Amino acid sequence: MSTAQIGVYGLGTMGSALALNMAEHGFDVAVTNRETEWIAPFMAEAGDLAAKLHPHDELEAFVQGLTTPRVILFMIPSGKPMDMMIDAVTPLLEPGDTIIDGGNANFHDTRRRAAALAERDLHFVGMGVSGGEAGARHGPSMMVGGTSHSWAQLGPILRAIAATFEGDPCVDHLGPDGAGHFVKTVHNGIEYAEMQVIAEIYGLLRNGAAWTPQEIGQMFSEWDRGPLKSYLIEITGKALQYDDPKTGHPMVDVIKDAAGQKGTGRWTVVEAVRLGQSANLIEAAVGARSWSSEKDTRQVAEAILGGARGGIALGSGTMADAFTAARILGYAQGFRLLEAAADEYDWPLDYARIAEIWRAGCIIRSAMLDDISAAFRGDLPAGQLILSEHFAQRLAACIPALREVVAAAVTGGHAVPALGAALSWYDTMRQGFGTANIIQAQRDFFGHHGFERLGEEGKHHGPWWE
Amino acid sequence: MSTAQIGVYGLGTMGSALALNMAEHGFDVAVTNRETEWIAPFMAEAGDLAAKLHPHDELEAFVQGLTTPRVILFMIPSGKPMDMMIDAVTPLLEPGDTIIDGGNANFHDTRRRAAALAERDLHFVGMGVSGGEAGARHGPSMMVGGTSHSWAQLGPILRAIAATFEGDPCVDHLGPDGAGHFVKTVHNGIEYAEMQVIAEIYGLLRNGAAWTPQEIGQMFSEWDRGPLKSYLIEITGKALQYDDPKTGHPMVDVIKDAAGQKGTGRWTVVEAVRLGQSANLIEAAVGARSWSSEKDTRQVAEAILGGARGGIALGSGTMADAFTAARILGYAQGFRLLEAAADEYDWPLDYARIAEIWRAGCIIRSAMLDDISAAFRGDLPAGQLILSEHFAQRLAACIPALREVVAAAVTGGHAVPALGAALSWYDTMRQGFGTANIIQAQRDFFGHHGFERLGEEGKHHGPWWE
Repeated sequence: MSTAQIGVYGLGTMGSALALNMAEHGFDVAVTNRETEWIAPFMAEAGDLAAKLHPHDELEAFVQGLTTPRVILFMIPSGKPMDMMIDAVTPLLEPGDTIIDGGNANFHDTRRRAAALAERDLHFVGMGVSGGEAGARHGPSMMVGGTSHSWAQLGPILRAIAATFEGDPCVDHLGPDGAGHFVKTVHNGIEYAEMQVIAEIYGLLRNGAAWTPQEIGQMFSEWDRGPLKSYLIEITGKALQYDDPKTGHPMVDVIKDAAGQKGTGRWTVVEAVRLGQSANLIEAAVGARSWSSEKDTRQVAEAILGGARGGIALGSGTMADAFTAARILGYAQGFRLLEAAADEYDWPLDYARIAEIWRAGCIIRSAMLDDISAAFRGDLPAGQLILSEHFAQRLAACIPALREVVAAAVTGGHAVPALGAALSWYDTMRQGFGTANIIQAQRDFFGHHGFERLGEEGKHHGPWWE
Repeated sequence: MSTAQIGVYGLGTMGSALALNMAEHGFDVAVTNRETEWIAPFMAEAGDLAAKLHPHDELEAFVQGLTTPRVILFMIPSGKPMDMMIDAVTPLLEPGDTIIDGGNANFHDTRRRAAALAERDLHFVGMGVSGGEAGARHGPSMMVGGTSHSWAQLGPILRAIAATFEGDPCVDHLGPDGAGHFVKTVHNGIEYAEMQVIAEIYGLLRNGAAWTPQEIGQMFSEWDRGPLKSYLIEITGKALQYDDPKTGHPMVDVIKDAAGQKGTGRWTVVEAVRLGQSANLIEAAVGARSWSSEKDTRQVAEAILGGARGGIALGSGTMADAFTAARILGYAQGFRLLEAAADEYDWPLDYARIAEIWRAGCIIRSAMLDDISAAFRGDLPAGQLILSEHFAQRLAACIPALREVVAAAVTGGHAVPALGAALSWYDTMRQGFGTANIIQAQRDFFGHHGFERLGEEGKHHGPWWE
């Protein structure tokens, strides 16, 4: 009875949602789980969809239940569990079969696994899935890295279950091996940056202008009805307007200001540094989360250094413009990083297409991604998103507000690591002659490292060596 | 004829200088080099010191020329060459012998090598050497990681050749395996940060206040006669006052503003992120160097986005205070990173002692290190350098200037990534209640990640899930 077109191993939140989504779109799906006792409740909750879901208690029967060549999606914790499952399942597979890792894997691991399996004529797909549980169930954005062979088989299934933006499915085959997981990692880095920028703007209004969370939430909800429309703005607007059922206070006032993080934000920063493409907005966001976890230290510090924050006399319009500038710069840093990785790993990434598959289903979906896609399809001076006609004009309009906001924040003692980083990067990149000549003079002075002269090739030393 | 107490393999700039330094202090030093034709010129230039230097063309004779247990210092490019030399030399060694890597190695490699050699009863020392060629020849600062067995033999030699601060040699045994190389990596990260901060202050005065390089150089030289005295301030002051012999222009005006970097700055950033201790001043400095290398892009960008920079009406005193604050914060981030690594790798790092061995011989030597050492020997609330009485007071005095400088810079369009980062970190850490509650609300809203409530343990979810 090999009738299932795809197998889903792992019936946690994301795996269950994807399996149900596939069943709903008419695919026959074999399902199983390491803890077999999860299977029956999953089937029970599937309702009508159970007819398309084929449960198995044993890995071997699960594999045998798939039409060949087989396609098996693993939705399990990344890292060691994935390697263990590869070891367990490969003896049951045949040449041409495909294993998909749909978790947030490190793309270096994905590259390693794809290479190892290729030696046995097996295909390994690294697939980034964004959108959380609701996305997985009703339409995620999916970033696929792997072979054309796998994509030919997988594409129709994924296109059917993906989120759509004006009818266009938010999924594509982006490149080989680790390309999909890397694009997902950068997606998450952009997500970190945007979340941090939103938190900073909240902080300025809450602590500098005494707005209530309700008022700030209403502002974000209003932004969500205009050109800043995005999922993160939408949910922040909503979350800020909830009260705590227990105390009656605004909900956010009782949430501890200590943020968690998993691996992807850090991976993005590490890879950016490794590729010589420091993405300081994402660095700022990762840093802010790390520092937030030191709440005890911060409380001791406030008692010693003083925590007073001054007033901020800036309104919603200025904040919206500052946010717009920061969003453009955050996306731009993310795409620079994709380009650097494409060079390094020889991936044929299509940046316009990546922007398109992020337009729906994923956490960073925003109205701006349509403009980004258009910009990549057009003329990009020096290959830089911020130099496209569209974005250069928007920056010209919005950067003054970003300057106002950052200046007011640093004067008033409000922490704006991400907004400040955005502006630092912008001001660095728009200066044809920067200040690194001083760094070069210092390096030559103390270490005889040499430097280039302006307009003159070769290695020169300063007169301090004569 | 086994008469040499130590062998130096590698007669490049640093190896030659260290061998001569040892010979000058009365030690018998066996020397050799991969390219044997470098040996004779080295001996010829050694002059009177040649009597204490014992050259060998063959590795075997070089090793045989050492008293046992042997100590061999390798001053060769780090990475693969080091592994190759370990493979070549170990068959010639006996249990108890020590190999020292005096290059800028990645401490992870040092840990790996130490563990591998320990299995053969050989000792591997990772030694950070700072001070450039002049330091190596006349007194470097050295950071040693390895066994007590190695240190017992090596200590007397290194103490003799090290720089001294008021008679105290700037060298010590800091911990096992990679501890020395890690401390050197962080040293270099602090160096990157300080160089960048200096470059930013230069940029503000040059581009915002139309000071000449000569005038800015004089300012730094004046700073070097006060509490900001440091090697980097000293050499920047000097370098800025040189004219180009070729054109007659100030030298720094003809140096291309595209900075090089080797590995250590990036390693510091990567390790900081990995250890959850984002060091945003060092990140900013590494980022600024990366971006500086994109000069062509920056020139295109200036034409499109405009490169105008506004006036800065701030003088030397305000700049000096801002610099003081940034220096304190940069050191503080470096020491936080050391503490995190000490926890992670179980190294018994003595922070006061590390500050002391940086007081002379190394690139970041400054008058402030004496205060840092004293602070670590005293009471540190929450273990934070910036919360010591001394530094909290200095920050209270200097932070207003840092605010003024950063606000003026961002308003005027001058890039100050490191100065801005310093202030962001300070303002984040001095807020007992930050803004990460918003991040947590968002994460729970879209991913059901849960959060802690203030003063309440456990994992909670928002009312948006009810």
